[in-house]
Amino acid sequence: MSLRAEIIAVGTELLLGNIANTNAKELSEGLSTLGINVYYHTVVGDNPRRLEQAVEIARGRADILITTGGLGPTYDDLTKETLAACFGKQLIYHEEVGRGIQAYFERRLAGVPMPENNLRQAYFPAGAEILQNDCGTAPGCVFVAEGKHVIMLPGPPRECRAMFGRHVVPYLKRLSDAEILSHTIHIFGKGESEIESRLKDLMQRLENPTLAPYAKLGEVTLRLTARADSTEAAEALMAPVLEQVQAELGDLIYGVDADSLEATVLRLLLDQGRTIATAESCTAGLLSARLTDMPGASAAFLGGVAAYANGVKSELLGVDPALIAAQGAVSDPVACAMAAGVRARLGADFGVGITGIAGPGGGTAEKPVGTVFVALSTTENTFVRSLALGTDRTRVRHMATNHALDMVRRVLTGLPVEEIA
Amino acid sequence: MSLRAEIIAVGTELLLGNIANTNAKELSEGLSTLGINVYYHTVVGDNPRRLEQAVEIARGRADILITTGGLGPTYDDLTKETLAACFGKQLIYHEEVGRGIQAYFERRLAGVPMPENNLRQAYFPAGAEILQNDCGTAPGCVFVAEGKHVIMLPGPPRECRAMFGRHVVPYLKRLSDAEILSHTIHIFGKGESEIESRLKDLMQRLENPTLAPYAKLGEVTLRLTARADSTEAAEALMAPVLEQVQAELGDLIYGVDADSLEATVLRLLLDQGRTIATAESCTAGLLSARLTDMPGASAAFLGGVAAYANGVKSELLGVDPALIAAQGAVSDPVACAMAAGVRARLGADFGVGITGIAGPGGGTAEKPVGTVFVALSTTENTFVRSLALGTDRTRVRHMATNHALDMVRRVLTGLPVEEIA
Repeated sequence: MSLRAEIIAVGTELLLGNIANTNAKELSEGLSTLGINVYYHTVVGDNPRRLEQAVEIARGRADILITTGGLGPTYDDLTKETLAACFGKQLIYHEEVGRGIQAYFERRLAGVPMPENNLRQAYFPAGAEILQNDCGTAPGCVFVAEGKHVIMLPGPPRECRAMFGRHVVPYLKRLSDAEILSHTIHIFGKGESEIESRLKDLMQRLENPTLAPYAKLGEVTLRLTARADSTEAAEALMAPVLEQVQAELGDLIYGVDADSLEATVLRLLLDQGRTIATAESCTAGLLSARLTDMPGASAAFLGGVAAYANGVKSELLGVDPALIAAQGAVSDPVACAMAAGVRARLGADFGVGITGIAGPGGGTAEKPVGTVFVALSTTENTFVRSLALGTDRTRVRHMATNHALDMVRRVLTGLPVEEIA
Repeated sequence: MSLRAEIIAVGTELLLGNIANTNAKELSEGLSTLGINVYYHTVVGDNPRRLEQAVEIARGRADILITTGGLGPTYDDLTKETLAACFGKQLIYHEEVGRGIQAYFERRLAGVPMPENNLRQAYFPAGAEILQNDCGTAPGCVFVAEGKHVIMLPGPPRECRAMFGRHVVPYLKRLSDAEILSHTIHIFGKGESEIESRLKDLMQRLENPTLAPYAKLGEVTLRLTARADSTEAAEALMAPVLEQVQAELGDLIYGVDADSLEATVLRLLLDQGRTIATAESCTAGLLSARLTDMPGASAAFLGGVAAYANGVKSELLGVDPALIAAQGAVSDPVACAMAAGVRARLGADFGVGITGIAGPGGGTAEKPVGTVFVALSTTENTFVRSLALGTDRTRVRHMATNHALDMVRRVLTGLPVEEIA
């Protein structure tokens, strides 16, 4: 039976939408790695009554309660008071912590007297173990009451992250008896519902490991998660399922535990010592920006041209104006000429050309909004995809760059480039 | 008495920490603008029993329940089923929605048969009003039961955001008895803490309207919100405060109720019939991609060059290789030569040149990571900003494009270009 944790974030700024609850994301990631199930996140304002209610609910359904926020020196920082009251504990002043806070202020403020309210941060529920704050003044703490582990962490993400990693992870490791491991399978080329229908039987049959899909803009990701006594046993549970998924989806999978499609392509280019240049019309630099998102891109990416005006296609890429006049700027031959042109001008191994109608205007009956041609020129070949990417401008532009990246990936791994099976 | 809303996000990926709950952030921001109090956020996995428990708790303490996620076609998308069961409602098939989903697939997939499970998305609780999804297939819905307003929105942030803005905001406005209006004041050039300290007295003094700051990557936004019996009365409350803020911040404000910095710049260019071209090294197309994010960009944006390799700076932009050798690729004169080069080659009114060290590698003692030069070349002048943008690669790249856009805005509105007061 694995442990269940619940994260309660305290802070009115979260309920006002000033910031997202990234602490819950990061803590959940860490807890899931430790094999601890997180069933709920709750966000509550700087309001002791509502925090108390949230704690009452959470203690009924979790073994581990983790709070973030409300440990600071100001009058609305009430987490320790409220949690102590919920579990019938006194707040006790910790001399040593108080001295530490004073020393911190002396180092940082050199002479400016410390506001007295900072010493509120030296009070903790009786019997609590103090968790040192290596990045700020407010220490956290952990105590056990009624069989529940209550852990209080500071709200600022840097402080929360550091305290969790250095002090809470070792504490939780002592509690947990199972290893939980996951692999993430990254897919491009088919939608979530098709992936799901191909894998439906497998997904429904599985209990440990589990396999769950989620979609992000134009991609699908599958998460495979196993729980076992050891890392080896967890991997052994996952290996046959990973094989089945790979057999079913084949080259739709662009990576397992990969960073992103652009990072995957960049790594392939760097590994193979190949260079690339881009010529983009409707995407106007989105592809070059994605390719250079990762450090080290300069060894593979030479440069690109955002060729919005037709004159730029001719002037900088050498596309014949007569070709544009005859075929239209959004056409298979112009995409190919852009790809070949940028490859030649920049002396790259690969040239990508993208031309299309991102909308909302500019569509015709023959070439509606969403019509995009993506061409890839190599020293041996030219490949083109002719795409219909819908009517949403942002999506059309993003998907066009996804297709370009997918084509480069396929050339670099010896797969069919133009068609997605 | 203002309405209380609670947001329940459904998705195991949130509890695994794969993604942060940005929907709750965005919805809370919108709800707060409408004068609706949000007291809790809850996150629950794709598990009908636990979702049911979360709904039971929420219905006891909120007037408006908003769910996000779990509306898709797959077997673990169970939000509609669970909410219908909680409120004792049948699920009903909506013919028209079913046809719409089929049509969407025909447009998008051109001949590929639609996986049958997509039609699950056409079932809704009896009596629900359907909320159209303008960015995906899964519609949302709203129904009223036991005096509660139950609103179900899709999980993908783009879809959630669009549906909330287009369909839920008007719905919620009808529930509220007061007019709530806001203006958003967009600022670039100073950080949140400086803006806050300049406006601190004003912010603390105000009750209606309220003035609250938000920071987003490299920009600061102030939201001014008034509640009154009529639109006119709300505007009258806000007008003097808006004037005070404008007097205090002056040309740091790039717009009120503007879309974005790039949209503001594009509109100025279009209004003045001026054209622009870009030459980007470390940002490699980010600026051109931002400038073309809006429809109609082609009338102002001619094209751009992502000049990553030094050879590209010379070949496509005419930057003298001797200048690069003498000054370094990351230097004031090279930024100016890039800006002038792209302006001349493309025949634009404005040329922007960006060169810098985005990191994490490539820094030196003299030019550390984050050193960026942004140049703007016009028919009369050349302007440069020499910047130190920190050590975070993503932030360095984004801020460099923000500065470029700010410089263009300042030239177009007759303000000092190189210095920010």
